[in-house]
Amino acid sequence: MDNRLVFPVDLLENFCVDAFSKFGFSQEESKIISSVLLLSDLYGIESHGMQRLVRYHKGIEKGLIKVHAKSELVFETPLSAVIEGNDGMGQLLGTQAMKLAIDKAKNNGVGIVSVRNSNHFGIAGYYAKMACEAGLIGWATTNSEAIMVPTHGRLAMIGSNPIALAVPAEPYNFLFDASTTVVTRGKLEMYNKMGKTLPEGWALDKDGNDSTNAASVLENIIAKNGGGIMPLGGSQEITGGHKGYGYGMMCELFSSILSQGPTSNYSMTGGRGNICHGFMAINPACFGDPAAIKQHFSKYLEELRQSPKKAGHDRIYTHGEKEILAMAERKKNGIPVLVNTLREMVDLAGYVGLDYKAYFGDIKFEESPEMFKNNY
Amino acid sequence: MDNRLVFPVDLLENFCVDAFSKFGFSQEESKIISSVLLLSDLYGIESHGMQRLVRYHKGIEKGLIKVHAKSELVFETPLSAVIEGNDGMGQLLGTQAMKLAIDKAKNNGVGIVSVRNSNHFGIAGYYAKMACEAGLIGWATTNSEAIMVPTHGRLAMIGSNPIALAVPAEPYNFLFDASTTVVTRGKLEMYNKMGKTLPEGWALDKDGNDSTNAASVLENIIAKNGGGIMPLGGSQEITGGHKGYGYGMMCELFSSILSQGPTSNYSMTGGRGNICHGFMAINPACFGDPAAIKQHFSKYLEELRQSPKKAGHDRIYTHGEKEILAMAERKKNGIPVLVNTLREMVDLAGYVGLDYKAYFGDIKFEESPEMFKNNY
Repeated sequence: MDNRLVFPVDLLENFCVDAFSKFGFSQEESKIISSVLLLSDLYGIESHGMQRLVRYHKGIEKGLIKVHAKSELVFETPLSAVIEGNDGMGQLLGTQAMKLAIDKAKNNGVGIVSVRNSNHFGIAGYYAKMACEAGLIGWATTNSEAIMVPTHGRLAMIGSNPIALAVPAEPYNFLFDASTTVVTRGKLEMYNKMGKTLPEGWALDKDGNDSTNAASVLENIIAKNGGGIMPLGGSQEITGGHKGYGYGMMCELFSSILSQGPTSNYSMTGGRGNICHGFMAINPACFGDPAAIKQHFSKYLEELRQSPKKAGHDRIYTHGEKEILAMAERKKNGIPVLVNTLREMVDLAGYVGLDYKAYFGDIKFEESPEMFKNNY
Repeated sequence: MDNRLVFPVDLLENFCVDAFSKFGFSQEESKIISSVLLLSDLYGIESHGMQRLVRYHKGIEKGLIKVHAKSELVFETPLSAVIEGNDGMGQLLGTQAMKLAIDKAKNNGVGIVSVRNSNHFGIAGYYAKMACEAGLIGWATTNSEAIMVPTHGRLAMIGSNPIALAVPAEPYNFLFDASTTVVTRGKLEMYNKMGKTLPEGWALDKDGNDSTNAASVLENIIAKNGGGIMPLGGSQEITGGHKGYGYGMMCELFSSILSQGPTSNYSMTGGRGNICHGFMAINPACFGDPAAIKQHFSKYLEELRQSPKKAGHDRIYTHGEKEILAMAERKKNGIPVLVNTLREMVDLAGYVGLDYKAYFGDIKFEESPEMFKNNY
């Protein structure tokens, strides 16, 4: 069940742009949404690329995502803003908010923008990277449907709540982007599609005990039955689980708290996505010569990469390096897509009235499409 | 070896203030330094209170800490500053820098201050709490002597690098304060003093393999032989160790990178402490009514505390709650101090010329003072 077919980046991008256009987004909007998804696949983060199309498809179909939503700027200072998303598409609200944070940081040194009532926005790293490409330090976070069980709890109350941080550096920028859970829900979705057992130390069943059953954990998350994914550091204090829980709270602060929007435990309730995001851009010129700061950081990154390796490992990565390597390889050789994800894309094509064969040719599906049961 | 004697808070505070005064700090400075150490013991964070006096003692003795250092403001904007610490005492530089960040946030919305060439500043939470008590969101971080081994490495290259975040809330403020390693070095020092074996999943030997020998790991850290403490998430990617490594890098950014100061791998080299700190204060009024934001956050914290517990646990804590409970208990009943820590305090008293019996009475030490070997 983990068969993959490989497609050129352009082909997947065309499919995405056409599909989102069919949903009613403008060409420009469709390109923005697609570029967030494609960057994830290019970076080798398969969980948040084509694999997630089904979620946007179902979100629009169910009315969680309002294609024609108009956002509102409900509070603003020279350094900060709160945006009411009115259930719009996360990638569009995210891009709008980070652009505003970047403008503020360029003009005034720092920009912090908090967004409420949005939807899933893809990888947080996309937005942090936007700031970095403008020569700024970028920070992006989001809450999400509750999947993280707090230390000593048995009900998910906090989202996967990623934090992304991007900092200008040579030969490539530093880009840290990670959920504050041990793994993302997308990773569980991948294991489920592949029919694989989860590693120990990732997930909890509805009673809060360890579980390696991806399908069951995902079902319980959606039904809000209990269980979910462990915070980074695991489910116990002795391995620092309360720390992952704390980083998850840091995301809530910048997303749902400062915007006074719904916290993760209210996400996907009342027929709404209820997702909130937080963005920050910091101008390094607030601290000295940006070129000197960049050089200083690049030196440290190089020292890390050159530091002694443990036996059996020939490389120490700095954050963002694997993504740069993956992107070069995938731009050249194409993006592998799980056959079960392709099924979802074929289903999506049928829904919006696109001929999938015009993009992917005549795919021979050998397995039954079991994944369409109740995970979305 | 884990015997403890209990002393009233005031007595310990008097001892600390008198000892730091004897080192040459002013009465006011000695009170600031002591209040950082005492808050740690009051919060039940034994690793960073009296237990750490020996490190300041040895730091001053060796000339790493310059008692009469004068700091310099080397770069400033309305939102930001860089302070050159000139090897001063960390608690004094930390307090000065956070006060500056608070002023900037009160007047301009956000304040970010980065400090270079300082020394250990105690618990990061002390400084985040300062902002919170001024009605602001507080963030404090520091780098430290390299103890964290990056994923796939065998040499410590990153500090314990704590991040503290304090946010106004009812009935008590949210206060997250945690190293980005699984545990702090102070925790290893405690285990060493108690002669206890470390839990699995905390530390690495000089080859980068798992170790449970606190004494050996501490010796290797100081000698920069290799090994150290695992990042939060462990030493492998499958449990998210690269994430703890990433949070450690986040600390370097705000402390050593923005200030262009020494990164953790240069700490404790060249006869200097070479520690850098980073502070941020954010005025919630940048996002709406601070009282409404506080209420919104307090509601979520209460929902977390009230959420269903796992069997065998009757309580879910929000961050800072345990510290509030510990403080109430310790103010009432006193602070327990390890006998081996008391030995260090007696040694310190002798060094500065204080009569320890005037504070602690005639303590009967039963064990040999083995801990004075080479850990500091």
